Amino acid sequence: MGMGTVPLQDPGMAVAELNRTVKELGFRGVELCTNVRGVDLTRAGLEKFFARVEELGVMIFLHPFGTSLVGRMEDHYFPNTIGHPLDSALCVGQLVFDGYLERFPKLKICIAHGGGYIPGYWGRFDHAFAHREDCRVTIKKPPSEYLKKLYFDTVVFDERELKHLIEIWGADHIMLGTDYPFDMAEPDPVGLLGRVKGVSEKDMALVAGGNAERLLGLPAIG
Amino acid sequence: MGMGTVPLQDPGMAVAELNRTVKELGFRGVELCTNVRGVDLTRAGLEKFFARVEELGVMIFLHPFGTSLVGRMEDHYFPNTIGHPLDSALCVGQLVFDGYLERFPKLKICIAHGGGYIPGYWGRFDHAFAHREDCRVTIKKPPSEYLKKLYFDTVVFDERELKHLIEIWGADHIMLGTDYPFDMAEPDPVGLLGRVKGVSEKDMALVAGGNAERLLGLPAIG
Repeated sequence: MGMGTVPLQDPGMAVAELNRTVKELGFRGVELCTNVRGVDLTRAGLEKFFARVEELGVMIFLHPFGTSLVGRMEDHYFPNTIGHPLDSALCVGQLVFDGYLERFPKLKICIAHGGGYIPGYWGRFDHAFAHREDCRVTIKKPPSEYLKKLYFDTVVFDERELKHLIEIWGADHIMLGTDYPFDMAEPDPVGLLGRVKGVSEKDMALVAGGNAERLLGLPAIG
Repeated sequence: MGMGTVPLQDPGMAVAELNRTVKELGFRGVELCTNVRGVDLTRAGLEKFFARVEELGVMIFLHPFGTSLVGRMEDHYFPNTIGHPLDSALCVGQLVFDGYLERFPKLKICIAHGGGYIPGYWGRFDHAFAHREDCRVTIKKPPSEYLKKLYFDTVVFDERELKHLIEIWGADHIMLGTDYPFDMAEPDPVGLLGRVKGVSEKDMALVAGGNAERLLGLPAIG
């Protein structure tokens, strides 16, 4: 089941293409970059687009493409290895603190690469919310309460990192990812999941496909 | 036991002040920012400084002060909640990939705030090392082998995040932190550590003070 793409730089056209891909072509999700030419998704005039995604009930898959914050990332493939999880962190941070996950509570959003940096480092958000007024202006609940609404894929390459994600966010919020066909793809996604210890068979099945079936409205496999 | 500060923007003076703080004043560590006015520590002409730190056997405590990558971090205290762990990530990344942890194998470096983003998200570094030539130019071993040499403090605010750090990097590489006296400080560092489940009494004692005694060369307490 493929996902559509939409031209986010033109919010009106993004809504029109969303409608076409879902209503005419039968896609059940859209894949978006984590920013719009360097502008945060929550600040790119996309309110109507997000409202329409929520209304249609389709899934959003967020995938970073480098980051607009390129300084000090010239070498060692840092634009990808640090830039990707960073851009996802900024995107997730804005979805929470700009109040989008409160305003659009039914959004189904999955973020690539285990969601980037935040799913393993959310405590600092919650502490800031508890201890600083400027972090409570736009949201009513601790950031982690909104993070619980998100979904993260399994592309973190290490079974202990993946186990931590499953333990913290629940097996019903982690989805098998591949990142195919890039060299930064996980060559054996099912094998990686299989190496995670202490997860029940039922939870494994959710991660391996059950969650995707539910979020994309697919017929169950097997 | 206090730590000295040194003027990193003047490498010669940094070495002189390092010598003074350690030899004359008796400090057993230096606290450094994670960048020098926006330039990575590994690219600020500080080779002789790091060599001298290694020679003296004192500890380095790295603490970010915002980040030079300020774009898209205007609101919600993101310069701190995202900027700090990001700048630590860049710093740790360069210490690994610029080969500093290979060239100066005896450095004792502790990074604030649980080390920032990398200690919970190292898999992407190792995968890039394994699958891309440009990530193997400067180092011989997988990045995580160098990360094992580092020390991280406990200031991550959530006992499950902290437990994960202890499990991955070992109780002998995690050190009680406070971040005192900021509002982003941990108000109850010992309480946070106490809430971590499944860690032995011996390991707890290492985190709570044993590691600091060892790294700073302090007499044992109690």
